[in-house]
Amino acid sequence: MTTRHIILEEQGLRDGLQTLSIQIPVAKKIEWIKQLISAGLTRLQVTSFVHPQQVPQMADAEKLVQMLPDNKDVTFSALVLNKKGVQRAIDSGIKHLAISLSASDTHSRKNANKSIQEAKQEFKEMVSLALQNGITVRGGIQCAFGCRYEGAIDEQKVYDLVNHHLQTGIQELALADSTGMANPVQVKRMMQTITEISGPTPVALHLHNTENKGYANLCAALEAGVSQFDTAFGGLGGCPFIKGATGNIATEDTVHLLQQMGYSTNIQIKKVAAVSLEMENLIGSKLPGLLYPMVFRDDIKII
Amino acid sequence: MTTRHIILEEQGLRDGLQTLSIQIPVAKKIEWIKQLISAGLTRLQVTSFVHPQQVPQMADAEKLVQMLPDNKDVTFSALVLNKKGVQRAIDSGIKHLAISLSASDTHSRKNANKSIQEAKQEFKEMVSLALQNGITVRGGIQCAFGCRYEGAIDEQKVYDLVNHHLQTGIQELALADSTGMANPVQVKRMMQTITEISGPTPVALHLHNTENKGYANLCAALEAGVSQFDTAFGGLGGCPFIKGATGNIATEDTVHLLQQMGYSTNIQIKKVAAVSLEMENLIGSKLPGLLYPMVFRDDIKII
Repeated sequence: MTTRHIILEEQGLRDGLQTLSIQIPVAKKIEWIKQLISAGLTRLQVTSFVHPQQVPQMADAEKLVQMLPDNKDVTFSALVLNKKGVQRAIDSGIKHLAISLSASDTHSRKNANKSIQEAKQEFKEMVSLALQNGITVRGGIQCAFGCRYEGAIDEQKVYDLVNHHLQTGIQELALADSTGMANPVQVKRMMQTITEISGPTPVALHLHNTENKGYANLCAALEAGVSQFDTAFGGLGGCPFIKGATGNIATEDTVHLLQQMGYSTNIQIKKVAAVSLEMENLIGSKLPGLLYPMVFRDDIKII
Repeated sequence: MTTRHIILEEQGLRDGLQTLSIQIPVAKKIEWIKQLISAGLTRLQVTSFVHPQQVPQMADAEKLVQMLPDNKDVTFSALVLNKKGVQRAIDSGIKHLAISLSASDTHSRKNANKSIQEAKQEFKEMVSLALQNGITVRGGIQCAFGCRYEGAIDEQKVYDLVNHHLQTGIQELALADSTGMANPVQVKRMMQTITEISGPTPVALHLHNTENKGYANLCAALEAGVSQFDTAFGGLGGCPFIKGATGNIATEDTVHLLQQMGYSTNIQIKKVAAVSLEMENLIGSKLPGLLYPMVFRDDIKII
């Protein structure tokens, strides 16, 4: 049994909400953020500075950042896709940004209206603008393990993007299996290579459970030495610009799996599950996570 | 990349159907069995000889066995829980039986109305009766990784049951995570120990995805050298005598995961998925498997 500590970044407020058809009031978002912090989460991606017509759920980004609790122990981050987004983020006062591009040219054009070459150039300028304004940056690579439009993604292309990102001065790297197409053998091999390339720069992994492989991929990444993962309460999530995209690995299910395997997270599952249950009631259908409805039952044991 | 061959036993017709509220006509079951064989499955658990009032879906067991296709390359098995069931199975003409007991005393009493001690004695007598009648036997241990009533199960108790089973002359051993409570670290450790104890006797693993750990547990068992797994089309399943029990790992999702990892199965996912889609239409709700609705979409790539 290891006692390695695993850091989870809660992305339910961003990746989780962006495809919902109902609008969540900003006050409710803040209430959930406070509840998730009380559960022990220390990193939360809370919004994205994107065009409000494309992702209406994030139209309240500035307002939300203004209302965030004053907590020095928590890292609040926002996603941005272009320079305008970075400028909005700077103006909002948020201190951490996730800036990413896609390893798939087709997805890059659909998600950011840019080729990868154009995205690489803009990525540099975006990171530079953020760093100049005292913002720390997580540099991400979307669709790093497969693309619904292109199929397999050449691994060397991903490693080249990793090197590109590292040269821009980012504080952290993030690889995303945006489509849930990765498999454990591939994840272990690629994450071993990427953590070697990145050296002292921390590497996070963002997994989706679209093909029921998310948790197996998590275990493979743990073996490769990865200690940072993105999750969403109740397993919500999905990119509006990827066909067939579905939820992230669920925060509750991930914490439970990690605890059983002997890793520490300092996250209380029931407090997260309370948010998922509330969301289930709001949208009127079950979320993809399997553990959140179970933890409140007193007729069954969970070990 | 390994090319190790993995054998899957399709249990959708037994574990999958036993908790359904609608009755599937025996002719439809036979049609699905033929379709699953045409998909490449060579082992199918097709029914159980249990009390028709307790599991009404299996009341047609004798009739079903009579109607099974004549195919020497396929192993058809049935589950039995007591001597009466063995006798019915012998009379039906089926050639392979799954005989099991539970590692949890509480579950044993609920499922078979016997203490473990009583179940061990009857297990011996059941196996003996089956072997004397030319039937090959898979000896199983249910709730081997955790119990919803008792919580954790002492591992030594499971190993003792393994030794008990091996002494009865069974041809194959099966460990079941009936509740989906297992975790990958535990599965790897226990399956390594159990395959050592069992020596030349093949060992199969029966996994449920109740807590979203089924596929991670599959990968852990592969690492421990296990090459035989039970699955159910669409991820159907669940024991009627375990509170909160839900589906098996899905045949489609398992085949896809194995293929991506470089293992061979010789099973065609689309042909299995066709059965799952038909079942979805019959019961009017989505099954737990995630891959079966995706494989017929032509607007997304699956690698």
